[in-house]
Amino acid sequence: MGRAAHGADFLQLRIDDAPSGGRADWLARQLRLAIADGRLPVGSRLPATRVLAGELRVSRGVITEAYQRLGEDGHVVGRGRNGTVVVAAPAKARPAASPPPPPPGALFGTPPGTDIFDALRDAPARIDFSPGVPDLTAFPRTAWLRAERTVLRELSASAFGYGDPRGAPALRIAVADWLARNRGIRAAPGDVVIAAGTAQTLTLLGRVLHDDGLRTVAVEDPGSLGARQHLRNGGLDTPPVPVDADGIRVDQLRATDASAVLLTPAHQFPTGVVLGGERRRDLMRWATERDGLIIEDDYDAEHRYDRAPVPALRSLLAEHVCYAGSVSKLLAPALRIGWVFAPPKYRDALVAAKRFADLGNAVLPQLVLARLMESGALERQLRLLRGRHRRRRDAMIAAVGTHLPHAVVHGAAAGLHLTITFDAGFSDTDLAAAALARGVKVQPLSWHSQRPHRPGLVLGYAAPTATDIAEGMETLGETLRHLR
Amino acid sequence: MGRAAHGADFLQLRIDDAPSGGRADWLARQLRLAIADGRLPVGSRLPATRVLAGELRVSRGVITEAYQRLGEDGHVVGRGRNGTVVVAAPAKARPAASPPPPPPGALFGTPPGTDIFDALRDAPARIDFSPGVPDLTAFPRTAWLRAERTVLRELSASAFGYGDPRGAPALRIAVADWLARNRGIRAAPGDVVIAAGTAQTLTLLGRVLHDDGLRTVAVEDPGSLGARQHLRNGGLDTPPVPVDADGIRVDQLRATDASAVLLTPAHQFPTGVVLGGERRRDLMRWATERDGLIIEDDYDAEHRYDRAPVPALRSLLAEHVCYAGSVSKLLAPALRIGWVFAPPKYRDALVAAKRFADLGNAVLPQLVLARLMESGALERQLRLLRGRHRRRRDAMIAAVGTHLPHAVVHGAAAGLHLTITFDAGFSDTDLAAAALARGVKVQPLSWHSQRPHRPGLVLGYAAPTATDIAEGMETLGETLRHLR
Repeated sequence: MGRAAHGADFLQLRIDDAPSGGRADWLARQLRLAIADGRLPVGSRLPATRVLAGELRVSRGVITEAYQRLGEDGHVVGRGRNGTVVVAAPAKARPAASPPPPPPGALFGTPPGTDIFDALRDAPARIDFSPGVPDLTAFPRTAWLRAERTVLRELSASAFGYGDPRGAPALRIAVADWLARNRGIRAAPGDVVIAAGTAQTLTLLGRVLHDDGLRTVAVEDPGSLGARQHLRNGGLDTPPVPVDADGIRVDQLRATDASAVLLTPAHQFPTGVVLGGERRRDLMRWATERDGLIIEDDYDAEHRYDRAPVPALRSLLAEHVCYAGSVSKLLAPALRIGWVFAPPKYRDALVAAKRFADLGNAVLPQLVLARLMESGALERQLRLLRGRHRRRRDAMIAAVGTHLPHAVVHGAAAGLHLTITFDAGFSDTDLAAAALARGVKVQPLSWHSQRPHRPGLVLGYAAPTATDIAEGMETLGETLRHLR
Repeated sequence: MGRAAHGADFLQLRIDDAPSGGRADWLARQLRLAIADGRLPVGSRLPATRVLAGELRVSRGVITEAYQRLGEDGHVVGRGRNGTVVVAAPAKARPAASPPPPPPGALFGTPPGTDIFDALRDAPARIDFSPGVPDLTAFPRTAWLRAERTVLRELSASAFGYGDPRGAPALRIAVADWLARNRGIRAAPGDVVIAAGTAQTLTLLGRVLHDDGLRTVAVEDPGSLGARQHLRNGGLDTPPVPVDADGIRVDQLRATDASAVLLTPAHQFPTGVVLGGERRRDLMRWATERDGLIIEDDYDAEHRYDRAPVPALRSLLAEHVCYAGSVSKLLAPALRIGWVFAPPKYRDALVAAKRFADLGNAVLPQLVLARLMESGALERQLRLLRGRHRRRRDAMIAAVGTHLPHAVVHGAAAGLHLTITFDAGFSDTDLAAAALARGVKVQPLSWHSQRPHRPGLVLGYAAPTATDIAEGMETLGETLRHLR
């Protein structure tokens, strides 16, 4: 039957707070709040309309209308002579359980799960050698804002609507030009699909290949853990193929039954080797013989310090190479802009996958980036970064020599990171855990390896300053001495 | 053995064009171009290093180094005394086959495929009544740019790196506050996931539910074709449940074996009805009894013209409702920003799905939007839009009365579109095709229906001007008269 009704006073209703002309809305909102916080619990009766109208000095119609709103949204129900009864209360927000950051040991104590990079990013550290980011302090904020002003001034209103899932035409043209200039690739802008970074590209391709009946994509070993996780999430097996000083062992690729392979030919991740000319030709033979697919992850090829970057594989073998790149290493991962172009047989399926993924990337950042590419600002940014990164790389190599004299340095000719390996038999996850406990964040090589391997670390040098590099490497040296 | 070698002249090499200090790179690039365009075909020999060095008046080392580059990237191979032979040419870009736009009849002549909205968008038309977009000329360009300037000034460098896949904390807080103010929902910011619009939300949820063993999500009928396509792409069956004047028929939902349902309770798409209070309670009983999931697509609830919007279902039943919203109808679809919060049981899986989808939305637009939400600019925008949209809605209702006097208007109390139906027996796809041939773009109601239904049109009134609305509706009237 419901408990006793309460009046305006009990409910702390002050009609002076109500906007004129919106009193019924205001009252309905106040009553919902009262129901939500328990002042009007489920089972209680609302005040009689006549009583509340008198107390609030408003017409009875205002009260009736407010009660009707509450009825329509399911909070109350009219029970005739028994009045209007509260039958449902809004759910209370429960604070999200945000677990405390795990201790460094926990991060590295078990095989890395799919949230490992989030957990590592959230772990506090004084100095961060996580690979994969350029010098973020160099982000061209002024140029970006200036380009955005121009874009916003010139953009037609219809461009704010739903667009082409392949991306903005202006950016697809700019990307095709950029790749022709910088990567030796001839791509028609109509073939370029703008994606939310290479992570999205791999998920889209995973879907496309799975739908085509593929269940296996071979990967380099060592090779990127993140890329492998993305492929596996797409239901694809990722058999490891060894990498030597000339890149992937194509003979060992042949020994797998995979008809697709994910490669980083210009600067292998994480070892930094460049795929040799003979290997390139052998790989092309493999692709032709097996009607195979090469996914070329060209993640940091522009960052080459001593000479021009090697051309992309795609430039040689368009029919068998799906090319993927992004601005994550050129400008910033937080932009979430990349590009991909697939061989003809997968082109339409890739567009369909992108459409279902998100209907296409956001338009404003695409158009800003297109302007930076067309105006030469991105090339200037790349030159600026190359100079800074080279100095930081040199600082890191010098510091390895000083503080980790027994480590072997790999892959320092290009990119944003180097890999060091050790002959001694210890666990690189123990080293990474101990380093994090001392405030230095590194990734163990074993995260990026599927087969047994020498212990090692993957060290990003592009983001930290030379001072931090020196200090961090000194700490790493101390950590290693205490570990043994 | 290779054909005769050619010299600098034949290859049109002008050493004056080469940057000093980068001559080997320059020469390698020129030779790649010559290989690519057929001046140095596969099988031909490169000029002898001694000869070319003499012709270009550079040291022989420059030539040797350039040839070595070409060897490393797989274009040429050294054959000892037979010189250096071209063995592979870069693939030529082939212009993408861009088919001519289909005739209007073709668009509407067959059941709509997954690219139907792209095809419709690309179809030329004088007046566009496609539903689902607000007045795009009202996009607050100045406020957006001003907020972006502040964001770029204040942002820490590390924010340009990889971020939380759930989205920027500032936006998650702003969204939680926005929903508390405008939709009666109490959400903890930690539970909010920023997605690339509701299209992405549905694809993410499709994956999560499929992984949980679900194979069926019931949908409203009529209901959004796009939403249905997204769910089906996720491997989910979408049985239709009829909608009447109080919204979805919960009794008919009970008759399906679905334990999940996609709903638009605040303003049903496309009929525009509001889910009634008794239906809401019945729906909650269904959800509790069956441990069911309600996906609440709150796509345009803020656009209510005569009174405050009804509160979201989520506000009553957090344990069983997955809430999805976006800025597509508030600001612009091209921003690709939305939000979703799932019941506790799906929370972690949803975050994992977003991580695999793209590692999280781009950060700059998120932070700009957060500022617009916090500063009240978005609420001002919404008030401005409400005034404009209401006038356009009134113009459209008046024009329907004048030019389509036999049509019945549905769902005009809120939103960005209305639906009209006809008693007469003709095909609404024929009407849409004929209208498009006369330059007016509309969506036939049958696209959004799975079961037989009266012919109708879904008409967006928010984007076109009042003049265009009057003219377009006149054309629609003429079209209908000629059709009969």
